[in-house]
Amino acid sequence: MEIERPYLLFLGDVHDQLAAKTAQGVVDWRPDWCLGQMRLPNCQADTGLADMTIEEAVSKGARTMVVGVVNAGGVLPDHWVAEIVKAIEAGMNVATGLHKRLSSIPAIAEAAAKHGAKLHDVRFSDISFATGKGTKRPGKRVLAVGTDCSVGKKYTALALDVEMQKRGMKSDFRATGQTGVLISGRGVALDAVIADFISGAAEWISPANDEDHWDCIEGQGSLFHPSFAGVTLGLLHGSQPDCFVVCHEPTRTKMRGVEHPLPTIQQVIDRTIIEGQLTNPDIQCVGLCINTQKLSEEDAKVYMETMAKEHDLPCVDPIRTSMGPIVDEIQKRYPS
Amino acid sequence: MEIERPYLLFLGDVHDQLAAKTAQGVVDWRPDWCLGQMRLPNCQADTGLADMTIEEAVSKGARTMVVGVVNAGGVLPDHWVAEIVKAIEAGMNVATGLHKRLSSIPAIAEAAAKHGAKLHDVRFSDISFATGKGTKRPGKRVLAVGTDCSVGKKYTALALDVEMQKRGMKSDFRATGQTGVLISGRGVALDAVIADFISGAAEWISPANDEDHWDCIEGQGSLFHPSFAGVTLGLLHGSQPDCFVVCHEPTRTKMRGVEHPLPTIQQVIDRTIIEGQLTNPDIQCVGLCINTQKLSEEDAKVYMETMAKEHDLPCVDPIRTSMGPIVDEIQKRYPS
Repeated sequence: MEIERPYLLFLGDVHDQLAAKTAQGVVDWRPDWCLGQMRLPNCQADTGLADMTIEEAVSKGARTMVVGVVNAGGVLPDHWVAEIVKAIEAGMNVATGLHKRLSSIPAIAEAAAKHGAKLHDVRFSDISFATGKGTKRPGKRVLAVGTDCSVGKKYTALALDVEMQKRGMKSDFRATGQTGVLISGRGVALDAVIADFISGAAEWISPANDEDHWDCIEGQGSLFHPSFAGVTLGLLHGSQPDCFVVCHEPTRTKMRGVEHPLPTIQQVIDRTIIEGQLTNPDIQCVGLCINTQKLSEEDAKVYMETMAKEHDLPCVDPIRTSMGPIVDEIQKRYPS
Repeated sequence: MEIERPYLLFLGDVHDQLAAKTAQGVVDWRPDWCLGQMRLPNCQADTGLADMTIEEAVSKGARTMVVGVVNAGGVLPDHWVAEIVKAIEAGMNVATGLHKRLSSIPAIAEAAAKHGAKLHDVRFSDISFATGKGTKRPGKRVLAVGTDCSVGKKYTALALDVEMQKRGMKSDFRATGQTGVLISGRGVALDAVIADFISGAAEWISPANDEDHWDCIEGQGSLFHPSFAGVTLGLLHGSQPDCFVVCHEPTRTKMRGVEHPLPTIQQVIDRTIIEGQLTNPDIQCVGLCINTQKLSEEDAKVYMETMAKEHDLPCVDPIRTSMGPIVDEIQKRYPS
């Protein structure tokens, strides 16, 4: 199940940096797992890692080639397939977050069979999940929720885990999306699970643990997003979080991909508590994470101070400031 | 996409009537579509239809053999496969609600390819749904919701459609579960859709229509069920119902399959309105449908009168009494 490390990040010949978002996420959060990157001629993306060939990567111990890019239409170009086959022949496994299964490409399937390579299609899960039971499990859980999609829920969960580890707390980042799975080496892309098993898969992702252990769970979608709220609710029920952090991007005016306006932070807090109480009656909000990327230093500061006061909660930007105040709040409310 | 009619219902040699629940549902609601039933020696189920052989059914015009039974473990026994192949060879299509795809059984796949038969696995959908948009569509929609799974949501939606048709209103039953799809000849088993597309599939199921046309939409699960609430919420958002009916089974003490207690009818009304407002701000409750099967005539009467008074809404049992009062309420609130 686990994706073997270290990784060689394959960037293909994508036309911009955005297409390499997955690879960049892995490099940002798991630099120790990444030996280097491999780029084809004319590649316009760069994660900042050393460029290396398949042979160099294997000689340095690379175990898995991670296809860390998305291609328009989700199709794997033939010249990428050729490089993936070479990596398999050189002894590596392969992991991707593409919509097409690696094993559905005959050349890759044959090479993997011949060389005993593992193919990880993290968009798909071959696990037979049970339906969710909603029974309380031991261990503590904090879930990142959001006013919308793509507002920083993954980074928030990762930053919570990093800050907890730094303090010597027991914690794990729990991935629920494809990039998150590549970052953690384990997890499930929840949006690709069969609908009946959303909460069951969420229960699997965050299993019973020590009472003083924290799962920092990556959120998905928003309870207020008309496309994805079902996934968000199933994840909330399956995670049965003790507490949650609300993530928000203050300059966005419409929910991603639809015409709906964004809910307020307070609406998200209230709705998450109402719904979350089904599987954890003590659920509470412990902080706000603002993605202030599009604000000036001064505007960001004022905005976060205003939100902190308005909601009487610590308010941070996990990239720009520090996760410290939120973990302080967690330690205060849940002394171990 | 549509399953061709009329049907021959295949009951195999199941050991009890409950295993033929799907076939019985089709017979109860679409008697005109059913030519007859076909049973193997020792079959303990009986839908009450005339028994006939494949040859007799074909000579009377049967177009599709409906495998209307569930087998323990979801496996199709070899001697059932042989009969299905005979039906295909005789010119019929085949439809099932089993967990295994018909096309994954080599003998059936080969026969279908050779004879050009259509195989309908209603548990699976091969449609590429878009993600839900949440944009208001023309046409009216009424959704059956419930305090739990299996409390009569399908029968409620079907009975609403029948009563509306009887009054000359424009209406359609919209199926969201496997039995419902066989009853309507169209629809999607929502619980088997990929999680990202729950609300998108619900939008597909109930497309834009005339302003005075009613879609009577089969509900799934419950917003209070820790296993399936995600499906319920996605269906609610995608259906964008103008109104809803709450279904309830008054003797049940725990939610099906889990340890959670049942919510009250009032909790379901309130939560459905809160969540449903995301895609239809005017959503309202128009009635209660009680499954009084386990109550005496007198107890049922008292219970329904009490609930009607308590909630100031028409309260019926769609099997025992009549859907009339709820359609009266709908016509009163939505004059066309």
